Amino acid sequence: MLFYRLLPLLASTVAVLAARYPSFGTLQTQTSNGVMHVVINNTFSEINVLDYHLAFDLANLLERLQGNGTDSDVHAVVFSSANPKFFIAHVDINLFVTGFESPLPKFDPFNPDILFFDALMWNITTLPQATIAVIEGRARGIGNEFLMACDMRFALSSPNVLLSQTENSVGANPGAGGAMYLSNLIGHGRTFEYVLSATDVNADTAAQIGWVNRVFDTPHELHDYVDNLAARIALFPLPGIAGTKQGVNAISRPPRDVFVRDSQDVIISVTSTAEGQELLDAVLKATNNQSLGAFELDWPTEVVKLYQ
Amino acid sequence: MLFYRLLPLLASTVAVLAARYPSFGTLQTQTSNGVMHVVINNTFSEINVLDYHLAFDLANLLERLQGNGTDSDVHAVVFSSANPKFFIAHVDINLFVTGFESPLPKFDPFNPDILFFDALMWNITTLPQATIAVIEGRARGIGNEFLMACDMRFALSSPNVLLSQTENSVGANPGAGGAMYLSNLIGHGRTFEYVLSATDVNADTAAQIGWVNRVFDTPHELHDYVDNLAARIALFPLPGIAGTKQGVNAISRPPRDVFVRDSQDVIISVTSTAEGQELLDAVLKATNNQSLGAFELDWPTEVVKLYQ
Amino acid sequence: MLFYRLLPLLASTVAVLAARYPSFGTLQTQTSNGVMHVVINNTFSEINVLDYHLAFDLANLLERLQGNGTDSDVHAVVFSSANPKFFIAHVDINLFVTGFESPLPKFDPFNPDILFFDALMWNITTLPQATIAVIEGRARGIGNEFLMACDMRFALSSPNVLLSQTENSVGANPGAGGAMYLSNLIGHGRTFEYVLSATDVNADTAAQIGWVNRVFDTPHELHDYVDNLAARIALFPLPGIAGTKQGVNAISRPPRDVFVRDSQDVIISVTSTAEGQELLDAVLKATNNQSLGAFELDWPTEVVKLYQ
Repeated sequence: MLFYRLLPLLASTVAVLAARYPSFGTLQTQTSNGVMHVVINNTFSEINVLDYHLAFDLANLLERLQGNGTDSDVHAVVFSSANPKFFIAHVDINLFVTGFESPLPKFDPFNPDILFFDALMWNITTLPQATIAVIEGRARGIGNEFLMACDMRFALSSPNVLLSQTENSVGANPGAGGAMYLSNLIGHGRTFEYVLSATDVNADTAAQIGWVNRVFDTPHELHDYVDNLAARIALFPLPGIAGTKQGVNAISRPPRDVFVRDSQDVIISVTSTAEGQELLDAVLKATNNQSLGAFELDWPTEVVKLYQ
Repeated sequence: MLFYRLLPLLASTVAVLAARYPSFGTLQTQTSNGVMHVVINNTFSEINVLDYHLAFDLANLLERLQGNGTDSDVHAVVFSSANPKFFIAHVDINLFVTGFESPLPKFDPFNPDILFFDALMWNITTLPQATIAVIEGRARGIGNEFLMACDMRFALSSPNVLLSQTENSVGANPGAGGAMYLSNLIGHGRTFEYVLSATDVNADTAAQIGWVNRVFDTPHELHDYVDNLAARIALFPLPGIAGTKQGVNAISRPPRDVFVRDSQDVIISVTSTAEGQELLDAVLKATNNQSLGAFELDWPTEVVKLYQ
Repeated sequence: MLFYRLLPLLASTVAVLAARYPSFGTLQTQTSNGVMHVVINNTFSEINVLDYHLAFDLANLLERLQGNGTDSDVHAVVFSSANPKFFIAHVDINLFVTGFESPLPKFDPFNPDILFFDALMWNITTLPQATIAVIEGRARGIGNEFLMACDMRFALSSPNVLLSQTENSVGANPGAGGAMYLSNLIGHGRTFEYVLSATDVNADTAAQIGWVNRVFDTPHELHDYVDNLAARIALFPLPGIAGTKQGVNAISRPPRDVFVRDSQDVIISVTSTAEGQELLDAVLKATNNQSLGAFELDWPTEVVKLYQ
């Protein structure tokens, strides 16, 4: 199994296409031998919030990867995070607060019926490339939806790896098909248990029940496994990779119309009720606008204090 | 995690709406802090058969829970059984025997295309509230379909916990989507193994393969876990709970038309063949009309004697 | 649980219907007490390749089993292999090489929109009988698709049991819904991991993640379990078996149109590119036209050498 480590490892940066959106440098990419490593590093946030900076950078990246179809030099994409405690904390909650002005378009230009953030998650699933998430920190809300949208998930056994759909704890339902993908991985029973109670799963339990593919004891083992896997997949022609993804997605991904309905419901349920707005305001206050602190580190325990 | 135990635990009985059907008192309910506990106790049966008494009481309960939509004071419903050996044994077999007169309507008035019993199971899945089954005894046939219709299932590690779809052993297929929900939880391979052979699964194996969410060593641990889970879910606004259920159900629940076809097939396959009627008559005789005894306690072993 | 071993075990060969295709004797069948044992033994191949000999024999067998509908004397079918190292190695690769002439019709006469080989797999799923695969050797590509098309899968814990979808390693995607069935059994995450990397799973891991139902330490335990299971299922009336299969298939099997699209895609992606043809030629050369040797024994390791 050592053969593909012997391949020439000359790094080659992919030519950057003209970007549709302004670039904020929140994603560092490096490509060699058909594998692109993408490191998520939102320097505008202490907790890797998925805000408009990261959203624009992600939109540009997806467009670049999607651009050449199955002619792309990239066959596999590995996502990881530069933040030791957070893969992606969650979406920027301000975006759902009445009166907040965002530079983001409301809908994705390529999916005019899907809200911009949800479309980002959908567009990850339509990439021709194999996509792999390396998880060393928290991923809640849209963070877990990002993981779900990737083809594969590998986690470090670490107290920092905590995955959940937190939406229910602020009166909403997960958008972007988060809970729907989960029901394919862990069954609807365990999906309801974790999602309705907005409870974290840790890395070991996640691997045991199928939420993630595998768990590793050390970062070295984790990255070694993923690098070998990505390098092996990248050997194979992209049309076969894309075709395999189309087949499996046709049966395991939420149907597009269901995905859209689920996504719009999130917004409606959060923003149309006074209780929802109050909860979001309370979270922003309790987190000091999403700063690193007890609430973001241990959301499931802290959030219930809002109800006391 | 102790916070929600500190909530005031004053029991408050929910105001009972005018009931559509006669009431038989086979369901005891108690509601406090958004959680309704429902204890199944069919005093007309030694084995908690789902007969017309229990069916009418269940129909009234579901209507009451469904009635106010997401304005309900109840956010979570916990089902358990007062019978130490049976959660729900199975449907009253007499209902499928030619000539037996039942006071039940054939079809559900709210789902005029779904047989009354199957509609009860369907209507559990459409409740806005989170539904949790606490399993301390046998649940076979419609008993397991009832478990499948709930959002979550937690079991006691006990020789009394035995789950199965027994229909195949009397020439029928499971109705109410029983085997279909199961294939989302444990995959179609294990579903076929258990359902085609009409074999029981015990609590430990059920938890291992995903048939139930978790298994507990003692009733105290089981109830403690479920009570904490239900209390936590009940803190959160009902629209988010209902929205999450809609999303997950849209992808994991059998499509309605498939559910209907599967349900009608049960009846047809059982009642339209002489062999089916003979088997049902033989079961009623062997069980002394569904009395507590060897057959009901160990159906999978006893039923094959009918073929000898 | 001994009761059904006491049933009379008089072997009775099923009357052979007039065969639609020439017979090559690659399938040995024996039927007793409602259970048909089918031993796959392609004497034209060292590795039980699924070539036109085996395809014709399989087509005749399926037609015979399907023929009488739910009046069949056979209620359960157990597939095993006479080759100690291979259940079914894979499809005859020559069939996909430009210029190779095959006596096979391109499409199944009963499914004129499905390629002949894929239709064989589809037709296994539509049998009224319960189908069980006993796995003691390798099953890759269409070999694993054959396993997926069966209702249940039981494996021997043996270094010879290696399962995979190898198509990606030669630039194609799995046809016949191979990866799609797998995503119902092991979730889309692990499906992508194994299928995109064209990596083998062994028997123990396969049982752990749900790829197969169970794993056994010895051939005796394996066959004993399966024989008891098949005998028990065969006691029960066939309409119930067929009805149960229809219900579960309606929700876990790929929808027919998705199955067809996935299947045609395989051919297109393999045969329409120069790279695909080169890879297939290289495999035929490296395997000495699919002879028993290092490549067929350890495809995942050997195939990457084609890329060096």
